[in-house]
Amino acid sequence: MGQIEKDFLEYIKKMQAYEEAINVMYWDMRTGAPKKGIDQRSEVIGMLSTEAFQMLISDKMNDYLTTLSQNDVYQGLNPVTRKAVELLKKEYRKNKVIPVNEYQEYVVLCSKAESVWEEAKAKSDYTLFAPYLKKLVDYNKKLITYWGYEGNKYNTLLNEYEPGVTVDILDKVFSKIREKIVPLVKEISESKQKPTTDFLYDHFPKENQKKLSEYFIKELGYDFDAGKLDESVHPFEITLNRGDVRVTTKYDENDFRTAIFGTIHECGHAIYEQNISEELEGTFLCSGASMGIHESQSLFYENFIGRNEGFWRRYYKKLQEYSSKQFDEISLEKFYQAINESKPTLIRIEADELTYALHVMVRYEIEKSLFNDEITVDELPRIWNEKYQEYLGITPPNDAKGILQDVHWAGGSFGYFPSYALGYIYAAQIKHAMLKDFPHYDELLETGQFEKIKNWLTTNIHQYGKTMQPLEILTAVTGEGLNAQYLIDYLDEKYREIYQLS
Amino acid sequence: MGQIEKDFLEYIKKMQAYEEAINVMYWDMRTGAPKKGIDQRSEVIGMLSTEAFQMLISDKMNDYLTTLSQNDVYQGLNPVTRKAVELLKKEYRKNKVIPVNEYQEYVVLCSKAESVWEEAKAKSDYTLFAPYLKKLVDYNKKLITYWGYEGNKYNTLLNEYEPGVTVDILDKVFSKIREKIVPLVKEISESKQKPTTDFLYDHFPKENQKKLSEYFIKELGYDFDAGKLDESVHPFEITLNRGDVRVTTKYDENDFRTAIFGTIHECGHAIYEQNISEELEGTFLCSGASMGIHESQSLFYENFIGRNEGFWRRYYKKLQEYSSKQFDEISLEKFYQAINESKPTLIRIEADELTYALHVMVRYEIEKSLFNDEITVDELPRIWNEKYQEYLGITPPNDAKGILQDVHWAGGSFGYFPSYALGYIYAAQIKHAMLKDFPHYDELLETGQFEKIKNWLTTNIHQYGKTMQPLEILTAVTGEGLNAQYLIDYLDEKYREIYQLS
Repeated sequence: MGQIEKDFLEYIKKMQAYEEAINVMYWDMRTGAPKKGIDQRSEVIGMLSTEAFQMLISDKMNDYLTTLSQNDVYQGLNPVTRKAVELLKKEYRKNKVIPVNEYQEYVVLCSKAESVWEEAKAKSDYTLFAPYLKKLVDYNKKLITYWGYEGNKYNTLLNEYEPGVTVDILDKVFSKIREKIVPLVKEISESKQKPTTDFLYDHFPKENQKKLSEYFIKELGYDFDAGKLDESVHPFEITLNRGDVRVTTKYDENDFRTAIFGTIHECGHAIYEQNISEELEGTFLCSGASMGIHESQSLFYENFIGRNEGFWRRYYKKLQEYSSKQFDEISLEKFYQAINESKPTLIRIEADELTYALHVMVRYEIEKSLFNDEITVDELPRIWNEKYQEYLGITPPNDAKGILQDVHWAGGSFGYFPSYALGYIYAAQIKHAMLKDFPHYDELLETGQFEKIKNWLTTNIHQYGKTMQPLEILTAVTGEGLNAQYLIDYLDEKYREIYQLS
Repeated sequence: MGQIEKDFLEYIKKMQAYEEAINVMYWDMRTGAPKKGIDQRSEVIGMLSTEAFQMLISDKMNDYLTTLSQNDVYQGLNPVTRKAVELLKKEYRKNKVIPVNEYQEYVVLCSKAESVWEEAKAKSDYTLFAPYLKKLVDYNKKLITYWGYEGNKYNTLLNEYEPGVTVDILDKVFSKIREKIVPLVKEISESKQKPTTDFLYDHFPKENQKKLSEYFIKELGYDFDAGKLDESVHPFEITLNRGDVRVTTKYDENDFRTAIFGTIHECGHAIYEQNISEELEGTFLCSGASMGIHESQSLFYENFIGRNEGFWRRYYKKLQEYSSKQFDEISLEKFYQAINESKPTLIRIEADELTYALHVMVRYEIEKSLFNDEITVDELPRIWNEKYQEYLGITPPNDAKGILQDVHWAGGSFGYFPSYALGYIYAAQIKHAMLKDFPHYDELLETGQFEKIKNWLTTNIHQYGKTMQPLEILTAVTGEGLNAQYLIDYLDEKYREIYQLS
C-alpha cells in the first residue's frame, strides 16, 4: 500500500473517530444524561461535528481525492480504498458546494424548528410550525439547485437516503400498493372476524419485559459482547464501532409489544451492523448500504421472525412464564392473531404491517408534490387529512395526530420516509429469495435455527456494508429489481388467513 | 474584556470540550461498554486526547500565554482568566517537554491497561497485568527525567496530585500515624469488647440497596438533575461538565455497606464538583483544588456524616425498611458499633476509618521504592503481601485481594494514593473548624439539616474550585497548616468509646 493511500485511510479514520465520540455522546443523551448538562453537551457535540465537517471539505481532502482518483494511482488501490474514495468524493462535492454561512444558518434553523415542532405538536397548532417548515423546504429546494437533478426534482432528495430509487420507480411501487392494499385494508375493516386483543394490555412488569427482550435478541444472534441494550424514550440502534453496536428500547407495562417487537426490530438493525466485514472498519463503508436496506433487516427480524407463528410456537411458553398470567387462558392461535391484528390507525410508528405502507405513501405523495411546487406548505394539513380518509378511511381529529406527528421534517429530513416502505418491500423480496435455500423456513424458527438465518443474511447482505448500492444488493440477492408483488402476496396471504377471508 | 482574552478563553473551552468527550467515553467504558468495542474506543480516546494535548503545547498556546502574561495585559485580565493563565502556563511547561508520540502511546496504553486490569483482577492473575504495569512505571520514570525533581524522585509524582507535599512531609506524617494508630489498632484487636456484626452480612437485595443509595445521596444534597448514579466495578465520581457530575457504585448483596458508604463517599466528591462557582466553567479551574482536598470532601461525607451516630438516629428506621429484616432485632447502638467495627482487612476501599491510613502507607512505601529503583514490578505481589502482614497482621489469599485491588496504577496514577491519607487529615481539620460554627453538629445530622453543612462547605471550599492551592484553602478554613493531630484525636476518642477502652 502506497504512503498516500495509508495517509488517506488514517485521515478518514480520524474523521470516524470524531463520529464515534459524537455517537457515544448522542447515545448518552438519549439514555439518561442529566438535564442540567445538556446545553454544554450540545456545544461539545457541535464543536466535534464542526471539526469532522471541516476535515471533510478541507483542501487536504480535495488533494487526497484528486491524487487517488488519477487512473494509475486508482488502479493500484486496495478495492476497499477505491470504494471509500468514491464515497468521499460524493460527500466532498455535495458538501463543498453549500456556502458555509447557509449551512450554519440551516443547522440553527433545524435546531429551532425542532423546538417549535415540539410546541406545535403539544398545542396541535400547525400554524406555529408552518413558517419554519417553509424555510426548511426552501433550503432543501436550494440544495436541489446546488446538487442538480435528473428527471424529477424530488429524486435528488430521495438519492440521499436510497441511491438509485427515483420517483418513476416509487410511483409504480406505490400505485401497486394502493391498488392491492387499500381494498384489502377495507375488506379487513369490514370483516366481522376480529381477533380478541384485550389481554395484550394487561400489566406486564417492566423488569420481566427487560429480561425477555434480552433473552429474545440473544436467541436471535445479537452479540452482547459487541453491544448492549438500554432504555430510551424512542427506541434506536446506534453503531459506535463495529464491536459496539447498541440498541435501546422502551417499556410500556400496559403493552408488552412496544418493548418486545421494538427490541427485535432494533436487533435486526444491530445484527446487520455487527456482521459487516471487518476490513471495512474506519473507512465510512462499515455501515448499512442505505436506509431502506437497513430497514429491510429490522423489519425482517421484527415481522418475518417476531410476528411469525413458528417463532411463537417456540417461545409462547417463555412469554407466559415471564408475564403476569395474562396469557394463561389464551391459546397460541388467539395470541398469534392478536399480535397480528390489523386496523387503520392515525400514527405511523404504531401501525401494523398491513397498513404501514399507506402511512408512508401519504408522506411520499406530499413530499413529491411539495418539491415540484404543486402544493404549498399551508395546504398540507388539509391534504394530509384527505389522504388519510382516502387510503385509511379515517381522518385525524387534530394536527398533532396528523401532519405534526413525526419529527423528521423539523430535522430537515425530506426524502427519508419512502425508505420505510422500501424496507418492507425489500424484506419481502429477501424472504422470498431465502425460501429457495430454506424452503421450510417456519420450521427454522420453531426449532430456533436463527444462526442459519443470520449467516444467510450476512453472506448475502450484511458483510458488504456500504460497498454495494441498495439495488445492486437487491438484484444480487433476489435476481430481480424492486418488486412490490412479494410484499403484497405475503400480506394478502397472511391477513386473509388471520381474518379468515376468502 | 479584550479580544485576546476572549480568544484565549474560547481556545481553552475547546480543549475542555475534548476533555468532556473523553470523559463521557471513559465513563461509558467503566459502566458497561461491550468488550469487543474497547480497542477501537481506546484509539478514539487516544486520538481526541492527542488533539487536546496538541492544543495545550501548541505555538498558539505559547503565544496566548506569553501575551497574556505581559504585565500591562495581565493586570487588565479578569481575575479568573489570570488564574487560568497561571494554571495553563504550568501545564504548558510540563507537557511541552513530552514528545507527542510518547504521550499518544501512553494514553492508548492506559486505556488498554485498565481493561487488562479488570480481567487480571477477575482472574486474580497478576502476570496478565504486570507487563502493562512495567510500561506504565517506565513512562512515569521518564516523566521524572523530563520534569526533574527536588530531593526525592517520587516528589515529582506527588506534586501532580498534592502540590507542595513531599516525601519528607509524608515520611513524618506516616511516622506519626504509625506511632499513634498502630498501637490503638493493636489495643482494639486485643480488646474483648467486640461489636456483633454478623447481621451486617445478611442478604440485602441489590434493588433495595440501589434505591437506598439514591435516597441517601439525594438527602445529602446531591443534585440528580446534574448527575446520575450508575454501577461499575470500582466506584468513582466523574465530572463531564458542571451540570453533569456522575457517581458510580457497586453492590454486594452480602454486605450492604459497600454500596451505601461507597455511594455516600462518591457523593461527597460530587457535591464538591456540583457547587463550584459557575464562572469557572470551561476554564480548567472548575474542579477540585487537589486530590487531597477532594478526598477530604468525600471522606467528610462518608465518615463525619455517614458513620456518625446522629445520622443513623435519623435513618436507621429507613434502613430497616429497605433491608430483609436483618436489623429488626438490632438496637441502634449495636448497629452503630457494628458499622464502626475496626479490624485489619485486605481491601482499602472497604477499610474502616482507623486502619485506612495503613493501607495507604503500604502503597506509599511501594511507590516510593519503585520510583527510587529499590524494587521491581515483578516483586510487587510479594512485597505487598509482606507489608500487609507487617502493618495489618494479615496476608492476602490472592492478588485480586492484594496488589490488584485498585485501578489507579492501570490509569497511570502514581503518587496519587498519599492524597487519600491527606484527605483524612484535612477532613478532621475541617470538621474541627466547622464545630466553631455548628457546635451541635450531631444534631444537624439527626434533624437532617444537610443543606447547612453543604452550604458551609460550599462557602469555605467548594466554590473556589482550583483557584486556590490546597494548603491555602486549609489555612483559610482552619487557621493553621497540615496537622495530623485532629485526625488522631478524633479516631482515638471515637474508637475508645466504641470499644470501651480507658
